[in-house]
Amino acid sequence: METRVGRTAEADVVALDRGTRAPKRDDVVAEEPLELRVAASGSSQTIAVTMRTPGNDFELAAGFLFDESIVRSREEIANMTYCLDPGMDPDQRYNVVSVELRGVPRDLTRFERHFTMSSACGVCGRAQLDALRELGVAALDDDVRVPAELLYRLPQRMREAQRVFASTGGLHAAALFDERGEIVAVREDVGRHNAVDKLVGWGLLDGVLPFARSILLVSGRAGYEILQKSVMARIPIVASVSAPSSLAVQLASEFNVTLVGFLRGERANVYAASERILSEAG
Amino acid sequence: METRVGRTAEADVVALDRGTRAPKRDDVVAEEPLELRVAASGSSQTIAVTMRTPGNDFELAAGFLFDESIVRSREEIANMTYCLDPGMDPDQRYNVVSVELRGVPRDLTRFERHFTMSSACGVCGRAQLDALRELGVAALDDDVRVPAELLYRLPQRMREAQRVFASTGGLHAAALFDERGEIVAVREDVGRHNAVDKLVGWGLLDGVLPFARSILLVSGRAGYEILQKSVMARIPIVASVSAPSSLAVQLASEFNVTLVGFLRGERANVYAASERILSEAG
Repeated sequence: METRVGRTAEADVVALDRGTRAPKRDDVVAEEPLELRVAASGSSQTIAVTMRTPGNDFELAAGFLFDESIVRSREEIANMTYCLDPGMDPDQRYNVVSVELRGVPRDLTRFERHFTMSSACGVCGRAQLDALRELGVAALDDDVRVPAELLYRLPQRMREAQRVFASTGGLHAAALFDERGEIVAVREDVGRHNAVDKLVGWGLLDGVLPFARSILLVSGRAGYEILQKSVMARIPIVASVSAPSSLAVQLASEFNVTLVGFLRGERANVYAASERILSEAG
Repeated sequence: METRVGRTAEADVVALDRGTRAPKRDDVVAEEPLELRVAASGSSQTIAVTMRTPGNDFELAAGFLFDESIVRSREEIANMTYCLDPGMDPDQRYNVVSVELRGVPRDLTRFERHFTMSSACGVCGRAQLDALRELGVAALDDDVRVPAELLYRLPQRMREAQRVFASTGGLHAAALFDERGEIVAVREDVGRHNAVDKLVGWGLLDGVLPFARSILLVSGRAGYEILQKSVMARIPIVASVSAPSSLAVQLASEFNVTLVGFLRGERANVYAASERILSEAG
């Protein structure tokens, strides 16, 4: 298999079709680990290693840091670089992103605990929601209203905007729309959460966060982490073409996020804050 | 929202259908964090917190430990318990599993490094594959051969065997088949990796590992971690109804695992070790 720089790689494939088989070349979605390091006050620390699709790596890094409350504005990021150690294997050069923060990083100890171990006796969904509140994250409070008909059009618009999906079929997408249903940005990744992090990172770096008055559409299921990232970015409406999880519904209800699932054709289920979606009748 | 014990929870939903809206009760897949603790030689350590669908938790714990080479046989597990601290919030009682190991746990330091930080300058897909080899994991070497027609029947058989999917649409499934295409076991979870861990954990606890001469089918995409777990369990054929990633293809090639993607209807792509799949013609 030959890996191209970027989001796809070529593979030799045997195509089976009923009783026949034929060799072909096919694109597969690229997957490589990304190590994220944070440098502040002279010391550097690896805070995450995630499998991701290469591309928009600085956005991914910035979005991850924002969603985990390590940074709260782009001014807190002094610079971001790939770790270009001359002794490093060329394959690895674009798999380590180092982010230098200004001043003392916020809550880095909490963050470590969060990701590596918990000293408390238990964990539960309730505790996860409480942790968000403790960070000072408030429920959404806006008057965004969109007609159901507008929602129905979003999946097709996202597919049209996806550049890689057509060739590999292997990427999750996250798309941001404005309240008129116009597409604002799309990001893709082998990991659903990464696609959202890339979107949020783009917003942070381009100075367009918070994503107030907007709609997020994700191509896969809507679990807890998608909703957590949406709340951090202040997105009032989150839609998925597939199912939400129980904890996603709970989080959406508590933070007043409109959660739409199974958005397919001209049908959908609204699991929380349905007043933002207007219907002709009913 | 009311959570039932187990894999689904009920939610109040607004069903949108074209211009109409109607309230209904609907099942959503349950998602709760699971904290996994390992106790050995008198000390206890949290080694992972994962979001999962409750159910088969001991299998999930055992499979995770096996796939990460913390344990290599069921004899190394002295016992597994829920952490039933009387002071604990009732909601949390079934979210902490403690596994007591016999003797000194294998490689726990390596494991910590792996999950929390890397001191090396870089990470890359190559290094991930090398790490597997360093654990002493060899390429598969068997004479399993199955006709393509047998593969085509597996997705339908998995769907029939899934108990929750029909009601919530929100669960990933992993199914194990024997080489005649008979279903051996199915596990489900909100996380694709967890479904495979539960399957492997079942095999470990029931003494039927390694899964030689078998076929794994997963409902979602086949990424690096699915293949890594399959190799640990010695599964010769891994099939997915969706796309594989580049690193999954690389791992499959190097460890001689037959990797089948886009298994839909009577078509499929074989990305590695295609000689295990027999066709009528070609």
